[in-house]
Amino acid sequence: MDYFFSDNINGLKPSAIREILKLSSKPGIIPFSAGNPASEAFPTKAIAEISNNILINDPGSVLQYSVTEGYAPLREHLKNTLIGDGLFFNDDGILITSGAQQVMNLTAKAMANRGDVVICEEPSFIGSLNAFRSFGLRLVGVPVESDGMNIEALEKALEENNNIRFIYTIPNFQNPSGVTMSLEKRKAVYNLAVKYNVLILEDNPYGALRFKGEEVQSIKSLDTEGIVIYAGSFSKVLAPGIRVGYALANKNIISKMTVCKQTDDVHTNLWAQMVAYEFLTKYDFKNHLIKIREVYRRKAELCMGLVEKHLAPKGVEYYKVEGGLFVWCRLPEDVDMLDFTMKALENKVAVVPGTAFLVDEEKKTNWFRINFSTPSDEQIERGIEILGSLL
Amino acid sequence: MDYFFSDNINGLKPSAIREILKLSSKPGIIPFSAGNPASEAFPTKAIAEISNNILINDPGSVLQYSVTEGYAPLREHLKNTLIGDGLFFNDDGILITSGAQQVMNLTAKAMANRGDVVICEEPSFIGSLNAFRSFGLRLVGVPVESDGMNIEALEKALEENNNIRFIYTIPNFQNPSGVTMSLEKRKAVYNLAVKYNVLILEDNPYGALRFKGEEVQSIKSLDTEGIVIYAGSFSKVLAPGIRVGYALANKNIISKMTVCKQTDDVHTNLWAQMVAYEFLTKYDFKNHLIKIREVYRRKAELCMGLVEKHLAPKGVEYYKVEGGLFVWCRLPEDVDMLDFTMKALENKVAVVPGTAFLVDEEKKTNWFRINFSTPSDEQIERGIEILGSLL
Repeated sequence: MDYFFSDNINGLKPSAIREILKLSSKPGIIPFSAGNPASEAFPTKAIAEISNNILINDPGSVLQYSVTEGYAPLREHLKNTLIGDGLFFNDDGILITSGAQQVMNLTAKAMANRGDVVICEEPSFIGSLNAFRSFGLRLVGVPVESDGMNIEALEKALEENNNIRFIYTIPNFQNPSGVTMSLEKRKAVYNLAVKYNVLILEDNPYGALRFKGEEVQSIKSLDTEGIVIYAGSFSKVLAPGIRVGYALANKNIISKMTVCKQTDDVHTNLWAQMVAYEFLTKYDFKNHLIKIREVYRRKAELCMGLVEKHLAPKGVEYYKVEGGLFVWCRLPEDVDMLDFTMKALENKVAVVPGTAFLVDEEKKTNWFRINFSTPSDEQIERGIEILGSLL
Repeated sequence: MDYFFSDNINGLKPSAIREILKLSSKPGIIPFSAGNPASEAFPTKAIAEISNNILINDPGSVLQYSVTEGYAPLREHLKNTLIGDGLFFNDDGILITSGAQQVMNLTAKAMANRGDVVICEEPSFIGSLNAFRSFGLRLVGVPVESDGMNIEALEKALEENNNIRFIYTIPNFQNPSGVTMSLEKRKAVYNLAVKYNVLILEDNPYGALRFKGEEVQSIKSLDTEGIVIYAGSFSKVLAPGIRVGYALANKNIISKMTVCKQTDDVHTNLWAQMVAYEFLTKYDFKNHLIKIREVYRRKAELCMGLVEKHLAPKGVEYYKVEGGLFVWCRLPEDVDMLDFTMKALENKVAVVPGTAFLVDEEKKTNWFRINFSTPSDEQIERGIEILGSLL
C-alpha cells in the first residue's frame, strides 16, 4: 500500500547528518556526538533503595492509573522550591511530563497552529526544533553570540513575521553552543516578548550543572505578565532513563497542556515520579548536586584543555563553558566542516556537524559540537588528539 | 494576557459530563465510573523482585537515555510472541510506547492531516476520540451492535466521506459497550478497508481478559495488505501505572510513528520496559493470566447478576460480557439518562453517562456505563441496589 502520511511529518526528512549520527553509535567509536549525561553522576544506590521501599510499602498506588497533572507530592514540592527560587507566581501551575522533551511537544501542540512561527536561537537543540516542526510550525532563527541571542536580530524577527507564537531559548549552557545568556539580554528578550505579545519557552535542562561563575536569574523569575513557559528536567540532575520533567506556567496554559497530555499518554510513569520525589525530599539533594558538578567540571576542563592544546593552534575557536555538556568549536574558514566530520568518523571519532542545529540544514557553517560527558577520560584525550591530527 | 491556543485544542471543550466525572472521584462515592483494572490483579511481588534485580545489577543502562524504538529484548520477545499468534507479518515492525494511549496519539499525528476523517465505533472510548480530536481530525460514528460495528453503516460512511485515514475499532470487549466483534464482521471491516484504501487502527487493551467463550482472531491476523495498526497494552495484564504499550504495523508506518515519538518524549521509561520484559519471560505469565481472568470473571458475574436482579425488572437492558471491564446498560425510554446519572451521584453512586462516548456529546442516548473492576464486591452490591431503587 502507498501510505498517506501527515504533511507535518513528511516535512521531517532524514538528512545526511542523521546518517552520520547513526554511524556514530557503532562500537569502537569515540562518542563526542552523544548528549548523554555522565552515568557516574547517577545516584544509583539511592534510586535502588527508594524503588524497593515504594514497591514493597505502596505497590497498589504506584502501579495503578494516576492523574494527568502528576504525582501530587512531587508537584507540591516543586512548587515550594520554585517559590523559594522566585520562579513561581500566584497564577502559575505545574504539570509533570514524560521528560522535558514533552514540554516542547505540548507547547507546540497547545499553543500554535500549523504554519505559525516559532523564533529560536540558531544554532539550537535539534530535538526541540523537530518537536516544533512535527506540528508544522515555521522556525525563524536568531544568531547566538557569546552572551546569548543577538537582540537586534530578535527584534527584527519579531517585527518581520506574523503569527509568532513563542520564542524558544535555552539560556543556560545552551545546546549546542554552551553559552549562557547575560541578565541584560534576558531582560531584553522578556521585554520584547511583552511588547510583541508572544510567549517565551524557557528550556533549562542544564542550569543545575554550573561548575563555575555566578548563576544568572531565569527569565521565568521576571515573569509578572504570565508569558513564560518554563521547562524543567530531572534528566541531568537525577537520570534521563526515568523520563521525568515538568512545565511551569500560568494556570490557563498548564490547563490546556494537561488536556493535550491526557490524550498523548494519560500520565507520566508513576514509579519515576515517586522516585524523583523521594530523592528530592529524603536524600541530600544539595550534596548530590555538589558531587555531580565536580564530575562535570573535571570532564569539561579536561576537554577544553585538550581543545586548547590540540585544536586551537590549528585555528579552531571555541566558547569557554561554565557548565552543561558541550563544547562548540569553529573550524578555520579553509576547512570544509562536513568533510572534516566525515573524516573524523572514518578515524572512529564522532562529533556532530553544526548544520544539525540550524533552522535550515542546507546552510553552510564551520561549527561542530563536542560532548564531554559521555566519553571516558581516555576517550576524550585520544579523540581530541585525533581531531587535531586531522587538521 | 489573552492567550492564543491552537484551534485543535480549543475544540476540546470541557463538557457537562466531565463535570460529573470530576465529582465522581470524591471519597465516599461508589466508583462505577472508573476504568481502572483491578489492583488485586497486579503481580506486585514479582514487580518488586524484578525491579530490585535490575537496579542492583544493571543501574547504568536502566537510568541512561535509550533508543526511541524501545528496549530491544522486549521488542524481540513481542515479535516472537506475535509471530506465534499470527499477528506479525514479514514487513512489520514494533514500537514500544508510553501506554497504548500513545499509539492513538502517534497514529493521529503521523497518518492524518487536520480536517481528515476517522471512522469510529459509536459509542467508543473517549480517550481515543479525544486523541483524534486533539489533532483536528473529524470523527464519523458507526453504530455498535451486539456483534460489533453495523457493516452497512460502515460502508455508507466510507462511501460518503472524503479523506478518510483510518477506521478505529476495539474488537474485544469494546469500551464502553463490552461487545466483541464477530469474525465475520472483522473480515467485512478488513475487506472494506482494503476496498476503500483506508487503514484500520485495532485497539486491543482487553483481549487477554476473556473469562468465557471462544477467542476471536484479531483483524491484524488477516492483514496481508499491511493496512492494520495494532495497539497492544500491558495496562490490564501487568499494571497501568508503568505506562507501557506497543504499536505493531508495517515498517514504513512504524518508522514515521518513531519519528513522532522521538519528538514527543524521546523514549518510554526504561525501567518499565525492563520490568515488563522480565515478567513476560522469566515468570509464569500464562498462569498469571489464568489467575487474573478469574478475578475479572468473579466481579463481572457478580455485577451482571445484580443488574439482572435489581435493574432488569425495571426495564434496563444490557449486553452480557465475556471479558473486559464494563457492563453497558440502557434505561427505559421514559427515563431521562442524564437526570438519572445525576440522581445516582447525589446518592453517592457514580456511573458514566453514555453521551460521553458519542461523537457528538449533545446527541441523546439512554445508555450508561458500569465498571466492575474498580469497586469492591460490597460496593458493587450496594451500588447496583441503589441504582435499582432510583428507577
